[in-house]
Amino acid sequence: MNTITKNTAASLTELRSKVPLVHNITNYVTVNDVANALLAIGASPIMADDINETADITAISSALVINIGTLNERTIASMIVSCKKANALGIPVIFDPVGAGASKFRNDTTKEILKQVKVTILRGNLSEVSFVAGLEVTTKGVDSSEADECNDNVAVAKTVAKNLNCIVAITGAVDIISDGERVVKISNGHKRLSKVTGTGCMTTALVGAFSGAGTDYFTAAVGGVASMGIAGEIAFEKAGNIGIGSFHMAIIDALSNLDGEMMLKRAKLDEE
Amino acid sequence: MNTITKNTAASLTELRSKVPLVHNITNYVTVNDVANALLAIGASPIMADDINETADITAISSALVINIGTLNERTIASMIVSCKKANALGIPVIFDPVGAGASKFRNDTTKEILKQVKVTILRGNLSEVSFVAGLEVTTKGVDSSEADECNDNVAVAKTVAKNLNCIVAITGAVDIISDGERVVKISNGHKRLSKVTGTGCMTTALVGAFSGAGTDYFTAAVGGVASMGIAGEIAFEKAGNIGIGSFHMAIIDALSNLDGEMMLKRAKLDEE
Amino acid sequence: MNTITKNTAASLTELRSKVPLVHNITNYVTVNDVANALLAIGASPIMADDINETADITAISSALVINIGTLNERTIASMIVSCKKANALGIPVIFDPVGAGASKFRNDTTKEILKQVKVTILRGNLSEVSFVAGLEVTTKGVDSSEADECNDNVAVAKTVAKNLNCIVAITGAVDIISDGERVVKISNGHKRLSKVTGTGCMTTALVGAFSGAGTDYFTAAVGGVASMGIAGEIAFEKAGNIGIGSFHMAIIDALSNLDGEMMLKRAKLDEE
Repeated sequence: MNTITKNTAASLTELRSKVPLVHNITNYVTVNDVANALLAIGASPIMADDINETADITAISSALVINIGTLNERTIASMIVSCKKANALGIPVIFDPVGAGASKFRNDTTKEILKQVKVTILRGNLSEVSFVAGLEVTTKGVDSSEADECNDNVAVAKTVAKNLNCIVAITGAVDIISDGERVVKISNGHKRLSKVTGTGCMTTALVGAFSGAGTDYFTAAVGGVASMGIAGEIAFEKAGNIGIGSFHMAIIDALSNLDGEMMLKRAKLDEE
Repeated sequence: MNTITKNTAASLTELRSKVPLVHNITNYVTVNDVANALLAIGASPIMADDINETADITAISSALVINIGTLNERTIASMIVSCKKANALGIPVIFDPVGAGASKFRNDTTKEILKQVKVTILRGNLSEVSFVAGLEVTTKGVDSSEADECNDNVAVAKTVAKNLNCIVAITGAVDIISDGERVVKISNGHKRLSKVTGTGCMTTALVGAFSGAGTDYFTAAVGGVASMGIAGEIAFEKAGNIGIGSFHMAIIDALSNLDGEMMLKRAKLDEE
Repeated sequence: MNTITKNTAASLTELRSKVPLVHNITNYVTVNDVANALLAIGASPIMADDINETADITAISSALVINIGTLNERTIASMIVSCKKANALGIPVIFDPVGAGASKFRNDTTKEILKQVKVTILRGNLSEVSFVAGLEVTTKGVDSSEADECNDNVAVAKTVAKNLNCIVAITGAVDIISDGERVVKISNGHKRLSKVTGTGCMTTALVGAFSGAGTDYFTAAVGGVASMGIAGEIAFEKAGNIGIGSFHMAIIDALSNLDGEMMLKRAKLDEE
């Protein structure tokens, strides 16, 4: 049993006892699952995106999760105001740059958020985080060919973590968590997770839940990502042969049953 | 068998035969469950929130449900226009002041709605309705310490019902329905309901369904709240040991199977 | 085995191999189910509705699905910009005029979209498509009594298909697909489908998935509609006696399990 596994299991127990309030400014596609995933893992979700109240809601929350899945000008402004409040109060900001790289608008928004906000944890897939890596390279005047050399996800995670001085979580077949120095690889999960919309968004929100429970942010990123990976495995065992609808429901079932003991048993975490 | 139980059971039978159209201006977190809960209980849902059509949609509906879960300036204006149309046409307005007390914006919006609109039924948890109680007290120039004396939910429900001349439903471990004079306590429900997002929103919509079926509004409030309570009990019996995802689905299953006979058997209603 | 059945089955196999990206500008009530239905049938969904990026997202997609279920001024503008981009690039546009006929705003929006956009496939229920039929009649200066003569769904489908030079799919107890000349009747489906919100929206999105996979658009319309019909039948067999929540989930299960062989066996398609 390695240290990161023990710490992650302990942090889940802590999360369930603290029931942190997690403020989400997120997309309308997966928002219901995000709220139910947060409830299932033991947090309390609140969604609020109007600029007249977002900073007030952030101020009473333990973590802020922003997700640009269905971004629009109205909510981008709300995200930035909320993030600045979170930064001022020392509340962790978890950023999911959904679809970064897919449109100029998403790219510009991602750039603007990273310029104006101190992000605590960045969670995305390799394509999204690679876009951020390239962006960072570019904004530093480095030739984009250097970004191309970030030819594996560990290198991308470390680069972005160093450049942004944050924790980076790249989810994929093997998930990578890095703060620029430390690297943890998570081998949990199931490829079927990609057939349910919102498993990425839920993972980001789970990272927010762990972050809001007082866990150190590196462990929080590991905890959120590992929770979804384990839930995906259990859901596949229970409902994998039935279909995607049953599997979807079984993910929430598994998250609601997950505790520190199961985390200890099932987490496959390797620290380099 | 008491009278309120008989009336509530009869009103569910009536609802299923009438299939009332219920217009919802609600939040994007739980809107899918709200629509499915309305279909399950025998109503027909319509969601429309653009000010260019909301009053037209209200005019063809049998009840209007407004919910400020993810309020924003655009939809608040739509809510007020729709409510005024409902008031003018004698269509019941059911108001769910989600999160009232949590931000100045929610507080101001709640205040504005109550100022401009005649609400037929107010449905919230103790915290939300207590905020409204305090607001009423304040707007009447009464010291807020008087609001503090509303130290139990029956007193809060009666006070707000009298002040607003409406029906008030406070949901909790025991649900309270009052019109300021009459008080019905509902002992159905299951604490697990609080682990699924939107059970409150669905309850409010169910109250709208009963209200739109021609039931007197007091019985409608009892019917909507009791329906969710009974559905929660049945869902827990069916799926309580599996997890929150299965329990969530079983709530909709139970609502779709609920009829007058089951209401007679399972409703735990006490009129003071 | 008739030709349309063979072609439809082959097109599903093709769809699963191509994984087309389908851009949806749709309503917030059923958007999660729309995304999961697209994933289940083998497509890749993307939702984007801000005018700063919608045309860019359309340009990288294989089909565009627009749905006015919760229309508002902001997203209508995005729909039109995206549709024009799709028209310019030869990307199919699938239009679901949800609630056309129910409010002046929906009517005007439907009219405006049909005026500015070349729609590839129109999918609606009889009421919605009849509204479009009447609109066409009216805009051609024909007496509305002539529209009344469109007294069955085949006539309505053919009329609208001819007038708009597109494929029309009218879903109901028997579904009708027509391009103005050809007519296919689909006898799959289950009446319980109308008790789950979003089965219409999902059907429209499935038509988008088939359209984006390179299938001829007539077969694509048949394929999308038949897929939902068959999924509804299978879902009823699996979960019909349990309740609407389980039935809802079983629809997605069935879509995820559907393949060309099952389509061959279960599709009930008759070409006149």
